[in-house]
Amino acid sequence: MKLLHIADLHLGKRLHGFSLLEDQQHALNQITALVKAHKANAVLIAGDVFDKATPAESALVLLDEFLTALIETGAAVFLIAGNHDSALRLEFGSRLLMKNGLYISGAYNGTLNKVRLKDEHGPVDFYLLPYVRPAQVQQFFIEQSIKTHEDAVRAALSSISLTPSIRSVLLAHQYVSGEGSLGYRSASESAIAGGLDRVCTSAFPEFDYIALGHLHKAQAASDSIYYSGTPLKYDFSETLDKKGALLVELLEKGSADIKFLELTPLRDMLRIQGKFSELIKPGLSGREDYYKIILEDEYDVLDAMNRIREFYPNAMQLSYEREVMPEQNEVGLSLKGKAPLELFEKFYSYQNDRTLDEESRQFIKPLLFELESGVEE
Amino acid sequence: MKLLHIADLHLGKRLHGFSLLEDQQHALNQITALVKAHKANAVLIAGDVFDKATPAESALVLLDEFLTALIETGAAVFLIAGNHDSALRLEFGSRLLMKNGLYISGAYNGTLNKVRLKDEHGPVDFYLLPYVRPAQVQQFFIEQSIKTHEDAVRAALSSISLTPSIRSVLLAHQYVSGEGSLGYRSASESAIAGGLDRVCTSAFPEFDYIALGHLHKAQAASDSIYYSGTPLKYDFSETLDKKGALLVELLEKGSADIKFLELTPLRDMLRIQGKFSELIKPGLSGREDYYKIILEDEYDVLDAMNRIREFYPNAMQLSYEREVMPEQNEVGLSLKGKAPLELFEKFYSYQNDRTLDEESRQFIKPLLFELESGVEE
Repeated sequence: MKLLHIADLHLGKRLHGFSLLEDQQHALNQITALVKAHKANAVLIAGDVFDKATPAESALVLLDEFLTALIETGAAVFLIAGNHDSALRLEFGSRLLMKNGLYISGAYNGTLNKVRLKDEHGPVDFYLLPYVRPAQVQQFFIEQSIKTHEDAVRAALSSISLTPSIRSVLLAHQYVSGEGSLGYRSASESAIAGGLDRVCTSAFPEFDYIALGHLHKAQAASDSIYYSGTPLKYDFSETLDKKGALLVELLEKGSADIKFLELTPLRDMLRIQGKFSELIKPGLSGREDYYKIILEDEYDVLDAMNRIREFYPNAMQLSYEREVMPEQNEVGLSLKGKAPLELFEKFYSYQNDRTLDEESRQFIKPLLFELESGVEE
Repeated sequence: MKLLHIADLHLGKRLHGFSLLEDQQHALNQITALVKAHKANAVLIAGDVFDKATPAESALVLLDEFLTALIETGAAVFLIAGNHDSALRLEFGSRLLMKNGLYISGAYNGTLNKVRLKDEHGPVDFYLLPYVRPAQVQQFFIEQSIKTHEDAVRAALSSISLTPSIRSVLLAHQYVSGEGSLGYRSASESAIAGGLDRVCTSAFPEFDYIALGHLHKAQAASDSIYYSGTPLKYDFSETLDKKGALLVELLEKGSADIKFLELTPLRDMLRIQGKFSELIKPGLSGREDYYKIILEDEYDVLDAMNRIREFYPNAMQLSYEREVMPEQNEVGLSLKGKAPLELFEKFYSYQNDRTLDEESRQFIKPLLFELESGVEE
């Protein structure tokens, strides 16, 4: 049985004022194509399908088209709510849609939805655990004290008993990492300070595969617990990351084959660095990508963002990187007894990373004299 | 074939700070029970299912439960968007849900969705026309000038051709009335000023039944064009209206039997009028209803709303009704040459609908004298 695992779509997400809807649609189209090409039997969508609890119409339409296209391939689709999703909104129509092979688990209700599919090796049980917070689980386990996300996951999973001979798959949306590891976090996640929401891999019983969502970088938390990561880059800290989906082939019990399938972005997310004049040379390729532009110019470039966008229309961020002189810590010290010109030279070299040349020196000298003496031309 | 026609659910509507969700749920439960009791083959929901384009989670859950319950009865369900609904949000999952017998038409796309059902008398064609504005239809009929709602409806309907021998039903959400009639409007509708959105019944071809939504009072626009009205009262101007659903039995072509089925509200919407002391007598029934309280007291009652709500916890509105004395128009005239006491007597009787009694007169007299003379006790 072949499963395609994706997560953290964050449909409707906006970044630095840019809508990413076209980029998301491009990614979803590739995912649908992968499902067809690999004849996947099921698609696992491990939470955070939307970026906001009340998604925009356009994001809703995008998910609708995606899910409809997936179901039309003949694959079953499993979808759980993440922390960004409204559990209740996501469940609209779910009791009817499961008859079409679309299984949505939005709000945790004390038990895990279980769906059984079959192939030539026998049955596979799919369990759906939407994102849970400790307080949500506590109400269903009043005899236990559920303080942490790990307590919550352990309690929620205690309600199921796996049959050792039957293959089983879990979908969950949590921050999970192995003993002693913090996993790879990403700046585009909404992290809980101090990692208090961390769940250890030991909290999970022996599933054949656990499809996780929440962390944005594709990674393994153990040899059967995986994050697919986001299908596209959502932060400039992710420019070097590979983005895609995980293709999981479950063979006979205990044997799974896992491959990362990379997606090609409509527009990549990149950083470029250099002097303004070097960056705006005509003939550069990939100019439609989303850029973080880092200028190395000594002087601020007038109207830089607008001029940059003539060449890189989707430049998202602009900043300057200037080497700070080692003297910076001295500024503000030992000003006393220094002549104005000496102070100005120090200030100039601090600001501009170079010493005052003779021409500038001859220009500033009479001005400083005037300032001091109160004489005006 | 039996059809149950409802419209204008306005799920999630709030009135004077009160959520009507429980009342709406109560109405929907009765509708589901009617569908079962009458073995209806189809439920027609003629728009404005939600009160707002972005409904609250609780309203979404309510519709989800209602539609799921209706489909479980075995009836087909037809649903069109009204002017209050977000056409695109309403369509989420619709291409999958139609496989379950739930046909949703949200956004007008140039053609009308058509669904054929059958019974012992042959086929019945259902056409779905969601709420349309002139500009929405114009883009699909560029060779015509579509200025009014009637133009829009005529153009949209021009794309279909009815087979005279086959029974046909239309769902639409518009302000429709017969030649020379304005229909019965209701204060809870969001009307377009001047009735510019009015569509004449003559704009519609010969359907066996047209299920309309938009006007909130149940009414017939012609002998085959009906408004079911809202399933519950949504304004104090509707306190005397009957609220419910229309049961339509289509027999052989050209023969339809139409009955109004009244619903019982969880809490009725009523007006009561009288003096405060009469209204708060213990032992009154129906105190859970939604009340508009009209007080006839001469004097404002201190903290009236809070005290009223001890007896009528769901009192929504409070107002005073006092007969205005015919002299009111004289106030402000001929003040000159009148003594202060005379002026005060006039003012007192105007304010209180009675003349100053002797005791009050003896009380006010020295006060007025003091005011005039500047003497203080």
